[in-house]
Amino acid sequence: MSLLIVGSLGLDTVATPFSKVVDALGGSATYISLSASYFTAPLHLIGVVGEDFPKEYIKLLEDHNVDLGGLQIVEGGKTFRWSGKYHYDLNTRDTLLTELNVFESFNPIIPEQLKKSKYVCLGNIDPVLQIKVLDQLDNPRFVVCDTMNYWIEGKKDELLKLLTRVNVLIINDSEARLLAHEPNLFKAAKIIRELGVEILIIKKGEHGALLFTEDIIFSAPAYPLEMINDPTGAGDSFAGGFIGYLHKTQDLSAENMKRAVVYGSTMASFCVEEFSTQGLENISYLRIQDRFREFQTMSKFDEEN
Amino acid sequence: MSLLIVGSLGLDTVATPFSKVVDALGGSATYISLSASYFTAPLHLIGVVGEDFPKEYIKLLEDHNVDLGGLQIVEGGKTFRWSGKYHYDLNTRDTLLTELNVFESFNPIIPEQLKKSKYVCLGNIDPVLQIKVLDQLDNPRFVVCDTMNYWIEGKKDELLKLLTRVNVLIINDSEARLLAHEPNLFKAAKIIRELGVEILIIKKGEHGALLFTEDIIFSAPAYPLEMINDPTGAGDSFAGGFIGYLHKTQDLSAENMKRAVVYGSTMASFCVEEFSTQGLENISYLRIQDRFREFQTMSKFDEEN
Repeated sequence: MSLLIVGSLGLDTVATPFSKVVDALGGSATYISLSASYFTAPLHLIGVVGEDFPKEYIKLLEDHNVDLGGLQIVEGGKTFRWSGKYHYDLNTRDTLLTELNVFESFNPIIPEQLKKSKYVCLGNIDPVLQIKVLDQLDNPRFVVCDTMNYWIEGKKDELLKLLTRVNVLIINDSEARLLAHEPNLFKAAKIIRELGVEILIIKKGEHGALLFTEDIIFSAPAYPLEMINDPTGAGDSFAGGFIGYLHKTQDLSAENMKRAVVYGSTMASFCVEEFSTQGLENISYLRIQDRFREFQTMSKFDEEN
Repeated sequence: MSLLIVGSLGLDTVATPFSKVVDALGGSATYISLSASYFTAPLHLIGVVGEDFPKEYIKLLEDHNVDLGGLQIVEGGKTFRWSGKYHYDLNTRDTLLTELNVFESFNPIIPEQLKKSKYVCLGNIDPVLQIKVLDQLDNPRFVVCDTMNYWIEGKKDELLKLLTRVNVLIINDSEARLLAHEPNLFKAAKIIRELGVEILIIKKGEHGALLFTEDIIFSAPAYPLEMINDPTGAGDSFAGGFIGYLHKTQDLSAENMKRAVVYGSTMASFCVEEFSTQGLENISYLRIQDRFREFQTMSKFDEEN
């Protein structure tokens, strides 16, 4: 059963209080794929880049067992570019530039042999495109989707249609509040699930993540990182770890979903330790498991004797 | 071994987006005592009120086994009054009025028979007064202390002196950032522990609480309350549950301290469900234990099979 990953690939110019990178590898599909690659293979990426997309980035993805058969390379086209600047506390950022370029006319086409994909991760792109992907698929079993405030505000109707067709929505706390028009996160979660979202994950950055299903609420802690170098891609790395682990284990029970949330948090913690995708490029599975266990140690407590 | 609780008793006028109460029972020592009273008895309260302090509030405390032998009632004096207004999201509030009244000249005097108290909870008052309390005590075993941004900014030197003399500091996330001059909470915690704080607890409201000791970091989830009526006293209720449980069990191990943090969170969750102290006035121990177990269910996950 294949895992399909749809989203953006881009060249990011990112400034933090500590440093700056120019035209680094970025994009939601990139981070999701690299993160998921530590759990399962092959991954099938659907996306678009221009002719200027560096060969070394193609190689990096291929080295991580990412099948790029569904990657459109537009002749003479320019790759999507994003530039952002993080504030002192790294929790807020300003977008300095968004150049859609080849992304502007992106029409995701799912290759015939991937239409029966059972696990699908829709990275943060226009909900219209996310729906287009689902329309081409033949009865997927498990669809995870990400979105952002830009689409919640600008394409609400399309997003609401999409939400009834996915199994899991992953958003951050401010997006959850915006989507539900409700400041209380737990109430907001209830409202969002009533929109037709079966499983909701709310990422809270330095405060961890929450998982809401019909039956459970699970609260995962944040990894105690004292040094965050670049928060870009944290959410996508989370999604990649989450769906990668579920695809590996083929177990969609609530108990396993909790573990998937912790593996998602684990991958996000590796991501933000380095600039761009560097934190996801070379991790041993042993380190991933060690960090998973650290999450467990941090959150475990027993009943009184 | 007695448990000594020092702090304010006041009359609070509180407005939230939902309702308003006038001259309701408030004050740090009040919330700490009521909360701790569910775990251990007797509690010895040190504080000051004016002649206008309602008899029914005295009775309420006495009904919760709070020994008021150390409560000074100033003849002709007026009780401390505080008035605040919570914003829409209940996470921020404006202080509309602070009338110190009898608190202005408060000199905490520890009765002779309580000078050997081994467990002490210093509620949020002027660090000069908190130090005065410690100066009168004969070798306390376990001192928990709370403070707030007002003292961090206004009496930093006195506060820093105090911190080297307590075992546990309980503050919220914004206070931790302010005290450490550091936006990253985990780094801030390290800096604060280097100031001489043996055990640090950072309360994060809707995001739970963190416990830092020499050896462990423990992350407790928040209780998924969909309706918060009045956040006033949440932090004090946390402190009361924390020290009340530790005093009851007389076990200061890291494992038991984790449980104490969850009992603290449990009591804070009961507190904010109602206005003023109402949420702490009549809880069965069974309900407290049930909620403790809900925290456990929310945060528990197992390693893969």
